[in-house]
Amino acid sequence: MSVHNAKVYLVGTGPGDAELLTVKAFRLIQQAEVVVYDRLVSDAIMALVPAGAMRIFAGKSCKQHAMTQAEINDTLVRLAKSGRTVLRLKGGDPFIFGRGGEEALELAAQGVRFEVIPGVTSAAGCAAYAGIPLTHRGLATGFRILTGHLQDGNLPEHDWAGLADPETTLILYMGLGTLAHIAGRLMEHGMPADLPAALVERGTCPEQRTALGTLANIAELAEAQAFKPPSLVIIGKVAALAKPLQWWQPDVVEAEAPGYFSISS
Amino acid sequence: MSVHNAKVYLVGTGPGDAELLTVKAFRLIQQAEVVVYDRLVSDAIMALVPAGAMRIFAGKSCKQHAMTQAEINDTLVRLAKSGRTVLRLKGGDPFIFGRGGEEALELAAQGVRFEVIPGVTSAAGCAAYAGIPLTHRGLATGFRILTGHLQDGNLPEHDWAGLADPETTLILYMGLGTLAHIAGRLMEHGMPADLPAALVERGTCPEQRTALGTLANIAELAEAQAFKPPSLVIIGKVAALAKPLQWWQPDVVEAEAPGYFSISS
Repeated sequence: MSVHNAKVYLVGTGPGDAELLTVKAFRLIQQAEVVVYDRLVSDAIMALVPAGAMRIFAGKSCKQHAMTQAEINDTLVRLAKSGRTVLRLKGGDPFIFGRGGEEALELAAQGVRFEVIPGVTSAAGCAAYAGIPLTHRGLATGFRILTGHLQDGNLPEHDWAGLADPETTLILYMGLGTLAHIAGRLMEHGMPADLPAALVERGTCPEQRTALGTLANIAELAEAQAFKPPSLVIIGKVAALAKPLQWWQPDVVEAEAPGYFSISS
Repeated sequence: MSVHNAKVYLVGTGPGDAELLTVKAFRLIQQAEVVVYDRLVSDAIMALVPAGAMRIFAGKSCKQHAMTQAEINDTLVRLAKSGRTVLRLKGGDPFIFGRGGEEALELAAQGVRFEVIPGVTSAAGCAAYAGIPLTHRGLATGFRILTGHLQDGNLPEHDWAGLADPETTLILYMGLGTLAHIAGRLMEHGMPADLPAALVERGTCPEQRTALGTLANIAELAEAQAFKPPSLVIIGKVAALAKPLQWWQPDVVEAEAPGYFSISS
């Protein structure tokens, strides 16, 4: 393939279930020549990459980076300039906490052609598979998505008073480590302690686990049940609908003071 | 097909481009027996429905409802109880302003089995195709999605002070009619008048139009350029990246005081 035709596709691969790939992503992956992939790209999706394709692991778990962002950017540019078509595979959507914007800016600056393929973001995937309608009428007028990820070791200085709105569903990406702190700040700023909250671990994957509690006990529940990344936190009245709308989840844990119990479907 | 096997699939069909259907939605649509569809399901996607399938239009544009929500719920239950597998096709994602929760609750109450298939929500689709990374580092710590749609003729009473956070990208669904009012309230509550803002009409479709302006002039720009639904509004510093990250958009209109001009790619 000529240099002229080289292109980088920044591809969102969705929350994990390979059936939730877009048709465009599925087609590109089946024809892949080089893939540069993150840790959150599921095994089921990596299994679709042709055997002969070059695979480059870019890392990006919470604490462990196989490559820095600058190294990833350089790798994409170098591969494209060598004439290869590159698939940059990311969990979820490339422009929602995927740092796809940084990669796209570097590609644009270097004159490398690129496309951005949106994906099902984890919030939509987890909500659908856990049975939580994010904007259910009468319960939420909208929703917001934040990362619980630390920046330079600190929690971002959010406008906590603005966040403490029980009419807005609040979704935390990468929020397990800072959940106790965030829940505490929200309650200090007036969010009701009994506001429903849900944890979804490995959402849409066969190993999905869901736990239901309240703002007051959700951090304790995450610890007691040993929830691990990738987990999503959904805080808001809509989280209570996970019980009547359970259609897929094989095993939901629910917290009610003082103990915990399990529901089997 | 027996009553026992009847099932309703609440399917998100994404922002419009048929290539952005999930693999699961694509497969289900190609095998469809009955589809109940909204106005926002694109023609390109409806063209995938088999010729022999029953098609029921449920309407749901801003002002015109072909069926009420209760009628839609009843139709889904009746069809499923008659033994049919039903695809309930919705634009975007069924649990993000899709009223999928209401339909799912009715199905659950009536003992009808259902599945929820998430889709690429319009915010992700429009952001990717317009070149706007919603959570670009240093420009946004998260984003929130609201509807500009009126409830009982009134704008929902939002916490405007909480909304007026220039670190959070603000996305309006169905916001054209109330954009001038919303932008005004945000500026009254301290949002900078020169905060970048973008309009995306028919995002991801061949007819996509994008316009770039500021919080102060975005409503005027929407009117001057005759933007029509479905249009998405993206307000926040990240909207300014649409210019360097333009990779797809054939025709972007940009407003700069005092006039407007066009950029051709």
